Amino acid sequence: MKNVKVGILGAAGYTGGELIRLLINHPEADIVFAHSESNAGNKVCDVHEGLLGETELEFSSEMPFDQVDVVFFCFGHGKSEAFLKDHTIPEGVKIIDLAQDFRIAGSHDYVYGLPETHRDAIKHCQHLANPGCFATCIQLALLPLAKAGLLTHDVSVNAITGSTGAGQKPGATTHFSWRNNNFSTYKLFTHQHLHEICQTLNELRPDTAPRAIDTLETGFDYMQEAGITVDFIPYRGDFARGIFCTSVVTLDKGMEASHVASLFRDYYAEAVFTHYSNKAIDLKQVVNTNKALVHADVFGRKVVVTSAIDNLLKGAVGQAVQNMNLMFGLDERAGLQLKASAF
Amino acid sequence: MKNVKVGILGAAGYTGGELIRLLINHPEADIVFAHSESNAGNKVCDVHEGLLGETELEFSSEMPFDQVDVVFFCFGHGKSEAFLKDHTIPEGVKIIDLAQDFRIAGSHDYVYGLPETHRDAIKHCQHLANPGCFATCIQLALLPLAKAGLLTHDVSVNAITGSTGAGQKPGATTHFSWRNNNFSTYKLFTHQHLHEICQTLNELRPDTAPRAIDTLETGFDYMQEAGITVDFIPYRGDFARGIFCTSVVTLDKGMEASHVASLFRDYYAEAVFTHYSNKAIDLKQVVNTNKALVHADVFGRKVVVTSAIDNLLKGAVGQAVQNMNLMFGLDERAGLQLKASAF
Amino acid sequence: MKNVKVGILGAAGYTGGELIRLLINHPEADIVFAHSESNAGNKVCDVHEGLLGETELEFSSEMPFDQVDVVFFCFGHGKSEAFLKDHTIPEGVKIIDLAQDFRIAGSHDYVYGLPETHRDAIKHCQHLANPGCFATCIQLALLPLAKAGLLTHDVSVNAITGSTGAGQKPGATTHFSWRNNNFSTYKLFTHQHLHEICQTLNELRPDTAPRAIDTLETGFDYMQEAGITVDFIPYRGDFARGIFCTSVVTLDKGMEASHVASLFRDYYAEAVFTHYSNKAIDLKQVVNTNKALVHADVFGRKVVVTSAIDNLLKGAVGQAVQNMNLMFGLDERAGLQLKASAF
Amino acid sequence: MKNVKVGILGAAGYTGGELIRLLINHPEADIVFAHSESNAGNKVCDVHEGLLGETELEFSSEMPFDQVDVVFFCFGHGKSEAFLKDHTIPEGVKIIDLAQDFRIAGSHDYVYGLPETHRDAIKHCQHLANPGCFATCIQLALLPLAKAGLLTHDVSVNAITGSTGAGQKPGATTHFSWRNNNFSTYKLFTHQHLHEICQTLNELRPDTAPRAIDTLETGFDYMQEAGITVDFIPYRGDFARGIFCTSVVTLDKGMEASHVASLFRDYYAEAVFTHYSNKAIDLKQVVNTNKALVHADVFGRKVVVTSAIDNLLKGAVGQAVQNMNLMFGLDERAGLQLKASAF
Repeated sequence: MKNVKVGILGAAGYTGGELIRLLINHPEADIVFAHSESNAGNKVCDVHEGLLGETELEFSSEMPFDQVDVVFFCFGHGKSEAFLKDHTIPEGVKIIDLAQDFRIAGSHDYVYGLPETHRDAIKHCQHLANPGCFATCIQLALLPLAKAGLLTHDVSVNAITGSTGAGQKPGATTHFSWRNNNFSTYKLFTHQHLHEICQTLNELRPDTAPRAIDTLETGFDYMQEAGITVDFIPYRGDFARGIFCTSVVTLDKGMEASHVASLFRDYYAEAVFTHYSNKAIDLKQVVNTNKALVHADVFGRKVVVTSAIDNLLKGAVGQAVQNMNLMFGLDERAGLQLKASAF
Repeated sequence: MKNVKVGILGAAGYTGGELIRLLINHPEADIVFAHSESNAGNKVCDVHEGLLGETELEFSSEMPFDQVDVVFFCFGHGKSEAFLKDHTIPEGVKIIDLAQDFRIAGSHDYVYGLPETHRDAIKHCQHLANPGCFATCIQLALLPLAKAGLLTHDVSVNAITGSTGAGQKPGATTHFSWRNNNFSTYKLFTHQHLHEICQTLNELRPDTAPRAIDTLETGFDYMQEAGITVDFIPYRGDFARGIFCTSVVTLDKGMEASHVASLFRDYYAEAVFTHYSNKAIDLKQVVNTNKALVHADVFGRKVVVTSAIDNLLKGAVGQAVQNMNLMFGLDERAGLQLKASAF
Repeated sequence: MKNVKVGILGAAGYTGGELIRLLINHPEADIVFAHSESNAGNKVCDVHEGLLGETELEFSSEMPFDQVDVVFFCFGHGKSEAFLKDHTIPEGVKIIDLAQDFRIAGSHDYVYGLPETHRDAIKHCQHLANPGCFATCIQLALLPLAKAGLLTHDVSVNAITGSTGAGQKPGATTHFSWRNNNFSTYKLFTHQHLHEICQTLNELRPDTAPRAIDTLETGFDYMQEAGITVDFIPYRGDFARGIFCTSVVTLDKGMEASHVASLFRDYYAEAVFTHYSNKAIDLKQVVNTNKALVHADVFGRKVVVTSAIDNLLKGAVGQAVQNMNLMFGLDERAGLQLKASAF
Repeated sequence: MKNVKVGILGAAGYTGGELIRLLINHPEADIVFAHSESNAGNKVCDVHEGLLGETELEFSSEMPFDQVDVVFFCFGHGKSEAFLKDHTIPEGVKIIDLAQDFRIAGSHDYVYGLPETHRDAIKHCQHLANPGCFATCIQLALLPLAKAGLLTHDVSVNAITGSTGAGQKPGATTHFSWRNNNFSTYKLFTHQHLHEICQTLNELRPDTAPRAIDTLETGFDYMQEAGITVDFIPYRGDFARGIFCTSVVTLDKGMEASHVASLFRDYYAEAVFTHYSNKAIDLKQVVNTNKALVHADVFGRKVVVTSAIDNLLKGAVGQAVQNMNLMFGLDERAGLQLKASAF
């Protein structure tokens, strides 16, 4: 048995499957149980079919929390909190929640799991709220500028997501006949991930002490107090994996492109999965990896930051495993040195 | 009001929508009603959204059969027969049924609506059973060889269909996240369209009088009596429109490629939408048109016929409108001179 | 012979092919010659393969200008002007140039062919410069707001184009292995279509008489004088046809959504192909049609306009044929009532 | 330095890039040089862009063969033999050739590198010819039946390949605008991989001693002598990675499906990457892995075998690394436990 014993809740969904695909090759972690009510007793490889030949694991109806070191919540949004009302997780067992239930600071002890901003807190936390996919990609584009106090005007963000972001349940906008070769927007200016983005940007404001944000409205308020609004247009792309994002930041005055680049390089000097690219990036550079790539161009007072991640990996379970590695003192890259699909 | 007054049943589905898209530009036909129970009262362009700006038509809850010349049944399979048990269509009103309920000859007067084989019967029929999409593409590949008495060994057919063939209802195999960049088979050797294919091929056997076929089993029997089996492997392709098919026919002895080509040219000399190509074909040559293209290569005793159609047009409502044109003495091409999407 | 006799230069490229696909079904126009140096003598359907069975036309090496009423220039950018230096088109022959050579007003008599702004001038012009694809989609999103004097702050435009926008010549960014499921940006903030966009917006400024713009720099200057910059981020999408665009306009103060909608409805009341949609739009509503759809949402002081066209039709040859119809007094819709591919 | 020191020739192409992506995470191998004439001096991650942040390797103009244990030839077909005429590889250095130059037995000592048939010979060989992508997928479908002496009639094979099979150079059939949502055939019945397939099947014929095959014609002759022809139709699919194949084998008499399944299970009992699936398979189960999946259905005397691989991995460099592992006594799975992209 390896060092870290893992339990997975909601193991039959998209993120559950991706987590299993990562952990069966993780050098330091073993899956003790993969819980799914609807699939209890079925082989994991009968649901996550690509796993045929790689694991004999079955979905369990049991949740033996006393046999594990950490539990991943791969529930839909809103179900984590409900689950914890009905069940008790032993104190010594760490929790990594992939839903949005605990991402906003409040009367709980969950640490926001973005290693690029909270690495130390993550290392010592017991409970972790894993960031949203859009939130990860957008924050990684803005963090160095926020820290430098350069977010002083409205920020214009356009981000395109793959269909896996919409989950496993079939519906009109994930129907192949509709989505193939199509393009559309949704949740214009109101996407729920704005909340956690505002929270982080507010924390990084160099001019002021961070303040508590406990609702989306409060988040917006504090941003607006600082003169910042993040105008976020999410798009449905006709690919399955990945998020590609452009963020336009208006500076008070022009800045050398090389200086902007150095802000990014410095900020991500210690980041093991986030890299600044000297040249324009494309989505497939990161698909099927835990990497994030960022690149910036400068036009007068405007900085255009391009960022890209795989929504299921750096945007979900890849980052969750990265966080697990930090929480257990493992190599941050363990189990995450993935071959890009590239094509 | 134009010459032909049309009623549509099942107007909110994929074929219903495509039929409306065709008929609003048809020079000789008008839509009198487009019936949909679930969408009664809604604008057609709120369901078939591409029609915005092209029609103010609304879905009706009424079916005023006495005001129309022809009714199209755009139901799912098996519902046409059920509908006719519960409703009476006036004698003078023609019926074009897109489902498979009346494709096999039996105790009914529906003519099988493949213009390439039944043009005269279609012109004079009152009730028409429109062929299946795979059945159309496969028959167009085999008809000239069947008529020439060359189908004397098992025929190997592989055909790939777009996702629209699976209809509007979302499901696991039409989920974008699954289907995109994926490939799979289904209904190996048992696809229901084999029945109508066998019926036609049996009719064309030059060595014998056609005999009645009223079940899939009978159809297979007669074919096997003649030493013929059609081994049909259907595939799910990762595109939305079109069927691409290869059929391998084994001859008793080799034949000049030019002779095979002339069999096809002669057979389709009068066909307005089916053309023999001198060179290899590709699917997008026919997508969004009512055309069928066929091409043949010869290797020793084996003839490989490639055929392609748009499954919603020549494979469904395009052919239905072609049949309507024939049934009403209109130009066979009326309303069907469609610009290929090409890309 | 029909009323309008047409010559096509550059007939073997993407736009040349699409123009032929349109004109062979046009009720009032005939193609007299389709010129291509490299393909002279070849059948048109051997190059634009989808046309098999629809036309026996051959590419010509001759350009008999005295036999035509209008010539379409389907050259690459910069070649139209060069061609006219070496060749003489008779005075009575109209020219429709699809390249960008004459889009900016200057010492020539070409009318900018956007029917939504220049319909009357188009009707009476002899020479026409057909707008760019991005330029069409972006202008249709902004015209009603520009005319109402509401463009008083920087405009943020994000637009995604299909691969056919990059033309027929294969290259790294149109290689299927790279582009499939990929996403990327190009020509950030510097796309050449900004020039014609600025020219039109400047014309529409209600506060001032239009002034001459003859370089991209001048265009920017005039816009900046008015406090307006169009920040345009073009993206390469992984589909073949279409442009999908979002434009964020910041108003001086908030405005009712219904009022914004009425600005669009009023502006496009007479437009036969441009329609305002009450609800969110998606790209495939317009693919393979000459339509443009626009929709607006309002968030505080920000108006988000979504617009979509088919880049080869309303963004190129569809609009060119619409312009031809206007120039020859035909029904503006003639030959352009195209069935959407829809899927 | 790890155990196995690797040199790569042709490192800037598709297979070269994929090999580098595999080897930088291989636990037992190090890349000593990655040779590319045209890219010498450039960073590897400037060409294989997904590698940004993962390697600082540069393409070399040198080929220091004395510093390596093994050289991979990632040339185009026909260039390996030419290279060896001009260059000398030291005797102690192993060669793994990805081209087809040495796949057919002849006056050379290259072992055909299909671990499922030649594992022992591979372990002890100095020079290895890595199988073709189609050839791998088709052979894995047929080997168990061939060994059981069941290939006694013509075999009908249909296989669809992703665009990466066509390599890096852009061309008409890999242009996104053409290939997207398209489908077509090529090299009907004459694909060059038939040669190596016939060679292996001939070796496995239980009724006769294997005989030398040194030309495609000889291969066909021997097969025909045994009454076997492999009718192979290759298709171009509109995805980037993967091969999906159906093979129809006609038996002398019917056989229980369970018996056929047990033939496959037994044959692949020791195979670490090839697995028999109890149920129908789909392509994405294997994309971005080194796995092959096979499944068989039985209809009377016909067995339909479905098989799927990733053309760049099990069909090329994944299998090459698997062979390297065998040749150096490493764990056969080393560096190849890849997370499927799954979506």
